[in-house]
Amino acid sequence: MLAEIITIGDEILIGQIVDTNSAFIAKQLNKIGVKVFQITSIQDDRQHILSVLEDANKRVDLVLVTGGLGPTKDDITKQVFCEFFKDSLVENKEVLNHVKSLFKNYVKRPTLPANLLQAMVPSKATILMNNHGTAPGMWMEKDKTVFVSMPGVPYEMKHLLTEEVLPRIIKKFKRPFIYHKTLLTYGMGESEIAKRIEQWENELPIEIKLAYLPSLGRVRLRLSSTNINESKLKKAIDVQMEVLFKMLKDIAIGFEDETTIQEQIAAVLNEKNATLSLAESCTGGAIASEITSIAGSSQYFKGSVVPYATSLKTEILGIDSDLIKKHTVVSAEVAEAMATHCSRLFGTKYALATTGIAGPTKGDGDDEVGTVFIAIASPKGVISEKFSFGNARERVISKTVNKAFEMLLKEISKN
Amino acid sequence: MLAEIITIGDEILIGQIVDTNSAFIAKQLNKIGVKVFQITSIQDDRQHILSVLEDANKRVDLVLVTGGLGPTKDDITKQVFCEFFKDSLVENKEVLNHVKSLFKNYVKRPTLPANLLQAMVPSKATILMNNHGTAPGMWMEKDKTVFVSMPGVPYEMKHLLTEEVLPRIIKKFKRPFIYHKTLLTYGMGESEIAKRIEQWENELPIEIKLAYLPSLGRVRLRLSSTNINESKLKKAIDVQMEVLFKMLKDIAIGFEDETTIQEQIAAVLNEKNATLSLAESCTGGAIASEITSIAGSSQYFKGSVVPYATSLKTEILGIDSDLIKKHTVVSAEVAEAMATHCSRLFGTKYALATTGIAGPTKGDGDDEVGTVFIAIASPKGVISEKFSFGNARERVISKTVNKAFEMLLKEISKN
Repeated sequence: MLAEIITIGDEILIGQIVDTNSAFIAKQLNKIGVKVFQITSIQDDRQHILSVLEDANKRVDLVLVTGGLGPTKDDITKQVFCEFFKDSLVENKEVLNHVKSLFKNYVKRPTLPANLLQAMVPSKATILMNNHGTAPGMWMEKDKTVFVSMPGVPYEMKHLLTEEVLPRIIKKFKRPFIYHKTLLTYGMGESEIAKRIEQWENELPIEIKLAYLPSLGRVRLRLSSTNINESKLKKAIDVQMEVLFKMLKDIAIGFEDETTIQEQIAAVLNEKNATLSLAESCTGGAIASEITSIAGSSQYFKGSVVPYATSLKTEILGIDSDLIKKHTVVSAEVAEAMATHCSRLFGTKYALATTGIAGPTKGDGDDEVGTVFIAIASPKGVISEKFSFGNARERVISKTVNKAFEMLLKEISKN
Repeated sequence: MLAEIITIGDEILIGQIVDTNSAFIAKQLNKIGVKVFQITSIQDDRQHILSVLEDANKRVDLVLVTGGLGPTKDDITKQVFCEFFKDSLVENKEVLNHVKSLFKNYVKRPTLPANLLQAMVPSKATILMNNHGTAPGMWMEKDKTVFVSMPGVPYEMKHLLTEEVLPRIIKKFKRPFIYHKTLLTYGMGESEIAKRIEQWENELPIEIKLAYLPSLGRVRLRLSSTNINESKLKKAIDVQMEVLFKMLKDIAIGFEDETTIQEQIAAVLNEKNATLSLAESCTGGAIASEITSIAGSSQYFKGSVVPYATSLKTEILGIDSDLIKKHTVVSAEVAEAMATHCSRLFGTKYALATTGIAGPTKGDGDDEVGTVFIAIASPKGVISEKFSFGNARERVISKTVNKAFEMLLKEISKN
């Protein structure tokens, strides 16, 4: 069971936006056992759309298309679908009423002719109602391949995919189970890991695939396989993962896939009925932003402060200015004081603090660009670690955020 | 002059990561007049890589491939390049020395055989030295099409592209200029805008393309064109953009492309030698995180506080708890008090505050999910606005962040 994803529109091709739609769709398909063979981005060009649809028709069972369904002249997906399926547009009463009621109750102004054209759909299409916009989805079939067209607006696409498209795919196709399990490791290079696990990798059953995914000081090792028997599949991967975990015990920091590290932290804090606050200097709000993106975070996250200017570390957090003078603002001592004062200021069980030099200039510290201290205060006291994260600002911030979450999960699980 | 981008590796196909590499490459190519015809993501599969390379060979001048160059068994791009170019791998002394010195000076442990294999490259390839990793880039030609292979690690790819690949493309190919200009509008739907500008759009010169890009309450209108004469090109677009801007004056909030709104805010604040602080409740650090992602932000950004728990609005920002009781925590009065107290606490000229209900539950407010207040304190006083941003958490946060930057830019430009 193979699928292709096609995005139409040149926003992606000129680099104006990143293609998050395809990642979302691929992930959802994977979960229900559909393997994505190819992802293709092309612009709103009749001939090119046709040729990509024809290619996909030859090699996969399911083609998911996003984009090109807007009410304006640059959108031509519906017209090209008609050409591809030798079909013509007809008015769909249900879509027409939906568009009218959307304008009456929500947009609160009269419809324009262009809006009503959204109700014109290929006559052979099964219409998938879009409750979050005016452009409906379409489900069409040709030579045993299913083609689905969805709007490109991420919010509308996500609802349509989840509520209308996935249930139909599940009903229509026999699918195997796909299972991935990813081990997170920190502090060892890809090739050194490969060397250590070489013999095991060579003896890995042919149906289990191992991928090395290096990024920012971490290597993720992913085992994947496919089987029609779900429990057999999971068992086969889990057994191998256990062996792998034992071989890499010293560098393994956990598993991915099932839940993100932020969700794991949320679960531990909720279980302990514990609270968290942050004092983010060099990360400038990035950690708080990730924590608060999770619904329900107000249960355990009380708040944070970004004392970006050095003087604010004294004025708001109340850190002794002599301590900063003595050790410099980027030091274990100041990081630890930030965490301790933060936990007191916000009245939380745990507090995490970051201070460092994200670059490109050295700022108020004496250290090299890329030097970062992360400290965590807990009821057992305060700990801190020093890191050298290189000299690219964006990278220093991301690495600090990643490392902070890793340290935090360890610390709250222990103390 | 057409290009294709091919990413190899199944991280993207299973939705584990979003393809940011292609967006970066596409943007850079666009800047130098190279149009991207297609972006394709496929997995490390010999036959599939070969067929995609062959297709690209037929239709474009330049093919940029990322991924599959790691030192481990799942990486096969080099082998497939050899097959495609009827070539074989030879040892490159320069790469060998680079890998050895990287391990000696940076990794600080002995090389493994797998690391040294990075020095094996196709004999016909021009080698592009990768100063930020062990896998070199490769530049190869076939039937007048240039194929470039780069590592998939974003940081390494970006350096290699910028330092080695782009200068070679500029030297090798005659390229026209490509010019985009994007108008940001807020508060009117795509079809209503289309209706208003219909006559102008119909009379737009054929070589100028108009795209409607709707997202989260905004519509961006992008004019694009290509010409070998740069000043003619820019003039043609600028003239049309001026007409468009006049027609949409009431909903236009600025232009994109040239600089982001964060950079525009940075420029205004630096010019005025003014400072900024934030009190982010419902945005939870997302605004601070975007501001501090810009190098040099410590010039104008003094810091922020995320008083996520209601009590902290009193304890840290010093807002009268009676005011909160009287008006509820999600109100114009509390938003304005947050901004005023924030500017005092951090000693900044401007302060921006957000308070709202991101959902999915109502939290400490009485209002509907999606209700948000944004307030800005300036030397002229404090202003605030109320918004209803729907009921999807992620969307409420993004819309608030977008709107906050728009309001902030207006306010600091005025007062």
